[in-house]
Amino acid sequence: MKNLFISIRNNDLFELFVVSIILSSAILVGFRTYEESINPEMFFYLSYLDYAITIIFVIEIFIRIAAEQKLIDFFKNGWNIFDFIVISISLIPIESMDAVLLARLVRIFRLLRLVSFFPQFRILIESLIKAVPRVGYIMLFMFVEFYIFAAIGSILFHEISPLHWGNVGMAMLTLFQTATLEGWPDLMYQSLETQRYSWIFFVVFIIINALIFMNMIIGVIIDVIIESNEEETPENIRLLNEIKIKIDEIETRLDK
Amino acid sequence: MKNLFISIRNNDLFELFVVSIILSSAILVGFRTYEESINPEMFFYLSYLDYAITIIFVIEIFIRIAAEQKLIDFFKNGWNIFDFIVISISLIPIESMDAVLLARLVRIFRLLRLVSFFPQFRILIESLIKAVPRVGYIMLFMFVEFYIFAAIGSILFHEISPLHWGNVGMAMLTLFQTATLEGWPDLMYQSLETQRYSWIFFVVFIIINALIFMNMIIGVIIDVIIESNEEETPENIRLLNEIKIKIDEIETRLDK
Amino acid sequence: MKNLFISIRNNDLFELFVVSIILSSAILVGFRTYEESINPEMFFYLSYLDYAITIIFVIEIFIRIAAEQKLIDFFKNGWNIFDFIVISISLIPIESMDAVLLARLVRIFRLLRLVSFFPQFRILIESLIKAVPRVGYIMLFMFVEFYIFAAIGSILFHEISPLHWGNVGMAMLTLFQTATLEGWPDLMYQSLETQRYSWIFFVVFIIINALIFMNMIIGVIIDVIIESNEEETPENIRLLNEIKIKIDEIETRLDK
Amino acid sequence: MKNLFISIRNNDLFELFVVSIILSSAILVGFRTYEESINPEMFFYLSYLDYAITIIFVIEIFIRIAAEQKLIDFFKNGWNIFDFIVISISLIPIESMDAVLLARLVRIFRLLRLVSFFPQFRILIESLIKAVPRVGYIMLFMFVEFYIFAAIGSILFHEISPLHWGNVGMAMLTLFQTATLEGWPDLMYQSLETQRYSWIFFVVFIIINALIFMNMIIGVIIDVIIESNEEETPENIRLLNEIKIKIDEIETRLDK
Repeated sequence: MKNLFISIRNNDLFELFVVSIILSSAILVGFRTYEESINPEMFFYLSYLDYAITIIFVIEIFIRIAAEQKLIDFFKNGWNIFDFIVISISLIPIESMDAVLLARLVRIFRLLRLVSFFPQFRILIESLIKAVPRVGYIMLFMFVEFYIFAAIGSILFHEISPLHWGNVGMAMLTLFQTATLEGWPDLMYQSLETQRYSWIFFVVFIIINALIFMNMIIGVIIDVIIESNEEETPENIRLLNEIKIKIDEIETRLDK
Repeated sequence: MKNLFISIRNNDLFELFVVSIILSSAILVGFRTYEESINPEMFFYLSYLDYAITIIFVIEIFIRIAAEQKLIDFFKNGWNIFDFIVISISLIPIESMDAVLLARLVRIFRLLRLVSFFPQFRILIESLIKAVPRVGYIMLFMFVEFYIFAAIGSILFHEISPLHWGNVGMAMLTLFQTATLEGWPDLMYQSLETQRYSWIFFVVFIIINALIFMNMIIGVIIDVIIESNEEETPENIRLLNEIKIKIDEIETRLDK
Repeated sequence: MKNLFISIRNNDLFELFVVSIILSSAILVGFRTYEESINPEMFFYLSYLDYAITIIFVIEIFIRIAAEQKLIDFFKNGWNIFDFIVISISLIPIESMDAVLLARLVRIFRLLRLVSFFPQFRILIESLIKAVPRVGYIMLFMFVEFYIFAAIGSILFHEISPLHWGNVGMAMLTLFQTATLEGWPDLMYQSLETQRYSWIFFVVFIIINALIFMNMIIGVIIDVIIESNEEETPENIRLLNEIKIKIDEIETRLDK
Repeated sequence: MKNLFISIRNNDLFELFVVSIILSSAILVGFRTYEESINPEMFFYLSYLDYAITIIFVIEIFIRIAAEQKLIDFFKNGWNIFDFIVISISLIPIESMDAVLLARLVRIFRLLRLVSFFPQFRILIESLIKAVPRVGYIMLFMFVEFYIFAAIGSILFHEISPLHWGNVGMAMLTLFQTATLEGWPDLMYQSLETQRYSWIFFVVFIIINALIFMNMIIGVIIDVIIESNEEETPENIRLLNEIKIKIDEIETRLDK
């Protein structure tokens, strides 16, 4: 029985079938956004298609679970847990609830299987997650920097533009916008009318961000070079050490 | 006969002549866009010039084909095929058709010979094409990411701005705009009026893109360093291995 | 007595307490910017909280000073001086003065302890300061470049837009904006109306900046690679030199 | 006599004096742009100051020329030629001519001595000039790319916005703007109204530019790594080769 499930899971046709279902579900989600081209009858069929896809996903994950030696083995792989959660959430019967918006968002949630299915994408995601600690502290530091500048900004420019500097939260959003260098001159000229030296605030903020950004790039390059050197060196050093030992032996022999 | 063609093809003057024709054809295309300075009489002469250039291009490619040992040899080089296609397309008699726009675009097509003629540009293009697989998966991954965010965006902001979020296609274009960090605050403030937490959508999207971009840069640098190390190492390792073998020989001799 | 202070300073609970006070002070600063949600009574309590935080900070720094062997030891660490200045400034009794704005800015000043408390942030700041000489000359050079272009710009475009090009100071701000590539086409099209060749000014300025920026990145990467090579090489070269000496010895012995 | 000039040129005080004159001339140029704060009397004095600075510059360059062994030696250094040209141009008596604008620009020209005087800036400029061949072909290639896209753009969007796409020159400027990712969505949405697929033009152009840019960065990093490896390797390889030769000698001796 278990062997049957394993042979299904490893079957290329089965995999192809799952891929086509994932892609269909993705196309379906996109198609639904072209509301003007969907008549009621089509909407009816689309709902059935949606149910069908959900059921196929449930069957597929059941097969993959059943193909494992033990239930626990399945959940040892992070991506299996990811798939399990994605499919579980898309099973929640929201259609019956009022929240049509939520129902639609849950369907989109299923698109995450696009990412978890293809091994190349998994590798990309994994390398992105690995990069987080590398940039984590810098992002936390930037959060603190933004917070301090937001506090200053909300005091200085509060009355000039409440929409942008009304409170520390809105000011942080405005600073995020400034950090992307988008529309900051408008913000500055607005404030320059009443406060002559407000340009210092913006120029300093942008230069500090540029320095932090450059520092992060340098840090990342250093990390990468050190790692690649560590991988390369051993071969080199190992050979040198072997040669040294041999020569020591020769010397000892000559001493005799 | 073939020798004649070969000597023409390899002649520096012939090459200079072809370059000047390519440049003339490029200048002509540019000149035609200054419509206000072209009177009917000039237009008449320009058309003749165009025909002349087309004929010269046909003769040139004929010479290059005739100079090869076998016809097939000519088409073994990708750039020859490229030139052949470009010239073939510019031979299509569109002038007689209604599509004036298409006729003009076909003439621009001939400008691609600017790229295929100069060896330095060919190298650049080839290195760009080589870079595609390196960034191919990341671009595909970003397409999936854009698609998922576009689906979410078209559900959340559909009614706020149909022009930007009307359907998944338009939403992807809007997200491409957001990814270039151009005009995104306008999009955000537009949506903030009705949905208080829509800033999360934009901030998360921009940060994810920044991470992917940084990851791509890191990946590329790692690739480049590994490649350059692999090229460099052999000389080093080869020498070390040779030395090791010699020392082994000495040891064997001493044992005797 | 001194031992008591040392044991307090090194106590994990004390450290946790200080962190929580720093975070509270940060949250308080942010909370105050939500003016609409603060009623007079709350404002009264907030002021008391502020006083309490100031007093705790004073006590904390007193403990850290008292825990040192000599007073001078405390001030040998740059970060201690930093903390001392931050706390001293926040002790200035501005509340009694007219400048409410200044009083608020001083409170924000205390947020800098967020940066000085956490070791990871200190390292980041230190690496940022270390990066300054590396980019210092380039920033000075860019200042000169901006100044020259600003002088040209204020002569050429003075009458077109006094707000942007009125004098060399305003022109430098406008060029900083142009260097961030934000809103520069508006500035250019404004000037193109009266001066046909003003586009050269903008295009040349942007290309020069791009070259300087690329040059800076290259310089930084070269620095980083050279540094990492210098760290790595010794191990390699040291081993090779040792081997050479040993072989010399063997040769000498064989000569005998 | 010549020794006198040499001792003046090498005198620290003389150098300090020249620096102060260069800086004064720079400040003067900036000060003149604050027109509202210059009354006629001051203007009179400023002109005299200008004359004085010009005369000092002429004397200084005369001293530097006289301090050389031969006149030709002075012009062997590129920076001397640079200074000579800058000072010669600022001697042209434009004040008497109508062109007030030109007179002012010539005065700014003198600011270039800020760049040529300080050795650190000279090094920066030299490294920028060295970088030009490295990026020269890519810039030429981008020019061709812009030209081709500009020709297409001026045909497709000519009637939609003559200001941006009127002819191939204006279209190239518009594409330069698009390449800086500034204001391109406005251009696109403008054209989308009449041509549904015009987004392809913009998206393809931006992606191609991104690829070219990334390729340039990779190329530069590869160049830098190869250079730094070439500098480093010899020491390594040299030692290895020496060791190999020594071992060969030992072997030969053992053979005897």
